[in-house]
Amino acid sequence: MIRVSIIGSGNVAQHLIQAFSTTADIELVQVFSRKIESVSHLIPTEKIISNFSKLQETDITIIAVTDDAIKEVSQQLILGNQLVVHTSGSVAMNALQNHSRRGVFYPLQTFSKSKAVDFKTIPICLEAANQSDYQILETVAKTISNSVYAINSEQRKALHVAAVFVSNFVNHLYQMGNEICKGNQLPFEILKPLIQETANKIMTLSPQEAQTGPAKRHDTQTINTHLNFLTDENQKEIYKLLTKSIIDNGKKL
Amino acid sequence: MIRVSIIGSGNVAQHLIQAFSTTADIELVQVFSRKIESVSHLIPTEKIISNFSKLQETDITIIAVTDDAIKEVSQQLILGNQLVVHTSGSVAMNALQNHSRRGVFYPLQTFSKSKAVDFKTIPICLEAANQSDYQILETVAKTISNSVYAINSEQRKALHVAAVFVSNFVNHLYQMGNEICKGNQLPFEILKPLIQETANKIMTLSPQEAQTGPAKRHDTQTINTHLNFLTDENQKEIYKLLTKSIIDNGKKL
Repeated sequence: MIRVSIIGSGNVAQHLIQAFSTTADIELVQVFSRKIESVSHLIPTEKIISNFSKLQETDITIIAVTDDAIKEVSQQLILGNQLVVHTSGSVAMNALQNHSRRGVFYPLQTFSKSKAVDFKTIPICLEAANQSDYQILETVAKTISNSVYAINSEQRKALHVAAVFVSNFVNHLYQMGNEICKGNQLPFEILKPLIQETANKIMTLSPQEAQTGPAKRHDTQTINTHLNFLTDENQKEIYKLLTKSIIDNGKKL
Repeated sequence: MIRVSIIGSGNVAQHLIQAFSTTADIELVQVFSRKIESVSHLIPTEKIISNFSKLQETDITIIAVTDDAIKEVSQQLILGNQLVVHTSGSVAMNALQNHSRRGVFYPLQTFSKSKAVDFKTIPICLEAANQSDYQILETVAKTISNSVYAINSEQRKALHVAAVFVSNFVNHLYQMGNEICKGNQLPFEILKPLIQETANKIMTLSPQEAQTGPAKRHDTQTINTHLNFLTDENQKEIYKLLTKSIIDNGKKL
């Protein structure tokens, strides 16, 4: 049984609490949350603390707070020789440098509090300052996920940038689709099968092979029709830049 | 039994041939294809013609050719008083104006020849010059899809633009994710659960509610780290524009 404590009460912390609660191999000892009510629906209140001095000794302390706060929280933790990890895609492991046993436990997924996720399918990217701690992290990660990767800090940075493109930016394009529908009395529902299929296609085809549309076909007539149709300057600018990028990309091949 | 012929051998034509082949309510009478071998794996060769003069009389002729060619093909079709439709998202119904009975049969989906699709879930957007022809189109559409919409030419144009955003542009962002992975010895596989979940989230949340990431949080430190990390000028420009758009969008709320 590996004993774990979690610092934080945001999206990642809440999803981790839920994931660890469902596995018998992990004992979730304590959760630090400034407000008890942020996590009291997920864990018995006697396990919730709001003062670092009350932290018990565990095998791993997981700091699941905003990127900005990781270093400060790390410095406030006086834990003896315990293993401390953070969960961020964009913060280097060395933000935890006041702990000699340090690491990263980064679940690569988009979390919203109101949407449950199946942790088993979520890639967990691990890094540790020494090999024996890596083994502990791997053991913990494998209790909640089938997909565990060793990823160093530089690769994790790359992964986080890639994730912004394929998730945050993609969702913003969904929103533009939604706005265009709204402006023309069309239900957003009508786009959902297309959105699903676009994501499904790249499970079996490369994005290169999966690319379709007027830019890919160099169909300037349709492109101009679309640009004339769009009235929102921001949407127009994004349409132009991404169209140019698809066309230029075709030329590189 | 409604008798249908299809003009064309591209992605849309091939997927329609397959869909109609599986329904007992439609008789697929002929397919026009310049090259017999383009569709001979889908339909008996005696039903494939490459000369318009050989077209038999049917209830509906579906022109499933590239946007540029629709008008020209329409003018070459001498069919008496038959119903003629095209399958394009971006061409007005009146491109078929030499046919008094005309309409549009637009399946809103991204088709690749190498990837099978379940037509039942694909929205089919219909338009017809008269109500009785609309009824025929609706009957045909419902034999292959559970999701049939009446959409006029102006709405269809909006829908096509929206589709470019949520599908073609989204796929291009997947490709950027793929390139960033490749450049850092990371398998693209690792991004796939995130891509799936990003698409799944908006089945239950609005894109607005589903938005996460550094731009949404106004996390300028992470944004600058990412911009410093990116070396490809095109990726940098796209990162900047979409980040700005997400930030500005937050201000509008």
